[in-house]
Amino acid sequence: MEVDKKDERESDSSEQVVNPWEVSAKDGGKIDYDKLIDKFGCQRLDESLIDRVQRLTSRQPHVFLRRGVFFAHRDFNEILDAYEKGDKFYLYTGRGPSSEALHLGHLIPFMFTKYLQEAFKVPLVIQLTDDEKCMWKNLSVEESQRLARENAKDIIACGFDVTKTFIFSDFDYVGGAFYKNMVKVSKCVTLNKAMGIFGFSGEDHIGKLSFPPVQAVPSFPSSFPHLFPGKDNLRCLIPCAIDQDPYFRMTRDVAPRLGYSKPALIESSFFPALQGENGKMSASDPNSAIYVTDTAKDIKNKINRYAFSGGQDSVEKHRELGANLEVDIPVKYLSFFLEDDSELEHIKKEYGEGRMLTGEVKKRLTEVLTEMVERHRRSRAAVTDEMVDAFMAVRPLPSMFE
Amino acid sequence: MEVDKKDERESDSSEQVVNPWEVSAKDGGKIDYDKLIDKFGCQRLDESLIDRVQRLTSRQPHVFLRRGVFFAHRDFNEILDAYEKGDKFYLYTGRGPSSEALHLGHLIPFMFTKYLQEAFKVPLVIQLTDDEKCMWKNLSVEESQRLARENAKDIIACGFDVTKTFIFSDFDYVGGAFYKNMVKVSKCVTLNKAMGIFGFSGEDHIGKLSFPPVQAVPSFPSSFPHLFPGKDNLRCLIPCAIDQDPYFRMTRDVAPRLGYSKPALIESSFFPALQGENGKMSASDPNSAIYVTDTAKDIKNKINRYAFSGGQDSVEKHRELGANLEVDIPVKYLSFFLEDDSELEHIKKEYGEGRMLTGEVKKRLTEVLTEMVERHRRSRAAVTDEMVDAFMAVRPLPSMFE
Repeated sequence: MEVDKKDERESDSSEQVVNPWEVSAKDGGKIDYDKLIDKFGCQRLDESLIDRVQRLTSRQPHVFLRRGVFFAHRDFNEILDAYEKGDKFYLYTGRGPSSEALHLGHLIPFMFTKYLQEAFKVPLVIQLTDDEKCMWKNLSVEESQRLARENAKDIIACGFDVTKTFIFSDFDYVGGAFYKNMVKVSKCVTLNKAMGIFGFSGEDHIGKLSFPPVQAVPSFPSSFPHLFPGKDNLRCLIPCAIDQDPYFRMTRDVAPRLGYSKPALIESSFFPALQGENGKMSASDPNSAIYVTDTAKDIKNKINRYAFSGGQDSVEKHRELGANLEVDIPVKYLSFFLEDDSELEHIKKEYGEGRMLTGEVKKRLTEVLTEMVERHRRSRAAVTDEMVDAFMAVRPLPSMFE
Repeated sequence: MEVDKKDERESDSSEQVVNPWEVSAKDGGKIDYDKLIDKFGCQRLDESLIDRVQRLTSRQPHVFLRRGVFFAHRDFNEILDAYEKGDKFYLYTGRGPSSEALHLGHLIPFMFTKYLQEAFKVPLVIQLTDDEKCMWKNLSVEESQRLARENAKDIIACGFDVTKTFIFSDFDYVGGAFYKNMVKVSKCVTLNKAMGIFGFSGEDHIGKLSFPPVQAVPSFPSSFPHLFPGKDNLRCLIPCAIDQDPYFRMTRDVAPRLGYSKPALIESSFFPALQGENGKMSASDPNSAIYVTDTAKDIKNKINRYAFSGGQDSVEKHRELGANLEVDIPVKYLSFFLEDDSELEHIKKEYGEGRMLTGEVKKRLTEVLTEMVERHRRSRAAVTDEMVDAFMAVRPLPSMFE
């Protein structure tokens, strides 16, 4: 009963809170990921698993694996066991389309999922929870659907393979086999349990109670009869940020009672705000994040003005003491997005020992992010409506396991 | 805020309980319909409204109207006002397919709805809540769907016009515009309110919390874009038994907040069990009801052995005192199904004054029900799979307002 290792939504600000709607560290400090693993009851992703990924895929593991961005899992070892014996799986990730433009934190699961799709040559379903955002953010149905389609363009721009990928909006796709699985899941979760897992209260609307099964059922291949007919035992691997874990604890608790396999998970830490590492970025403060729509000038300004520095107050002191890398956002961001391991090590050493200044590190970060955002922008501009339609079409994917 | 006139599910058996899952009278007596009207906040269907129906439709009102089987309403007068000015409406009724064979009580809303469809020449949607029965009765999805289709045959056998009628199973039809309306409704109902209206508890599963919007949204024409495109203001009239009122109190409370019209209702009393008038018939006791699958011999036996009689213990006493018509089930059943008003009056007079014996009344009832059940059986046998497919096809109904 993993589901009992639940994290009730806590209102006491002196405790860290991590759930799908709120992420905040204890007393404004850093998120304690060890405590989170313990509380949620997932496993740490250790070196031996990363080595296995390297062996099985015959390529260097993704930066996000090598550097611990994806740091926790549930049954990922079983996925690898099965893969080793020749059994495929499918990937499931998603996004709640609540804003027009994505920031860098939003891209992380998609960049990583693209790597997994390529490395393991497996199909992928991407859920756009426009129904959720319509209910939680009080957006109209139409606006939620418009945002879902806009976000789909950003997702497609990450480079997914249209022959292996199905992107769907809940408002479009809920029904049929998917709805049948929603009902099956709903039957297995009591109101008390849902309130415990998700922290809902009596003043919340019933749409919130209805939603967890919607996010649960893409974990089951029978929810996609056009993709996986007769493959009811195909296993599912979900790359996601760890705040989504409550949904899948519930899903894994229910799965065996429906005769389904539990989905496996591979879970990431949160991408920090420019102002410092005490939670996720805030959509309400545009200066807390770098958006894929930011210009080169925006990026430069945001990094120079807002990126929290671990450098010392004066050049003299900095030369003497070096930067505090533990709190330094430019170094943190580089560790997400600078591909070159040796360059990253060099920067950390030089900066940490005071030979490199904050300005130099910020300059390098500006280059890396500007190039990345420019590449994304070009890629997104090339995404046509026809391509979106193709990714979102309900049709078989004949070469999805090749 | 009609919804505040709610009937909380009462566990105290000394109070009458009427909700979609339980109907029981106070202290084993009769249902107090006046009290129900007062508690629910609906209106009594008075003579002047029945006269208006006669004038507007140029035909004698249905037995169920003339004899007060349909006895309560919400805004039925507004439907008639609009109809008088030339505005049409549509009908919505439904059934939870929990059993193979329907009993006579199940037929009542459909017999009455068929009359309304013919008399007013309006389209009709019939919801088969296979999802509800799957969740409440713990039936498998497949079994619920099979029962839905079997029940559809009995419903079609009531004589609905295929050019004006759409029958749908929730498992088939939930999705698209229907699902969007479900989400819109869900946003407007708090958990506390749903628990108050429907009496759910923390130990109930979340499927129960998710279901009321499913039964609500057929009240809105935009849930049927293939039937009512551009007719978002078309009004809806719901013929149903009064135990379904909580769903539509909720629906009517929510409708204006979504910019939709409130559905109107016309509500029936309950068809009594053979054993007496203290609730609805029980599916778990086959001898409490007459089923459309019963043979002539079954019907005769059930009426003779189980129909509660208001006659006296001995012929002598009966001749002297006459029958107590208030509690007599054969007379009650005849008042539902014997078309001829003068014959019914004659029986009531003769029987009530002791000149007619229970055996004679039961014999007449046996004839009436045998003929009715035989007619239903013949009609149902003629319902082909192609006909079911035609009624359940998602397609426009070009002549639905003619």
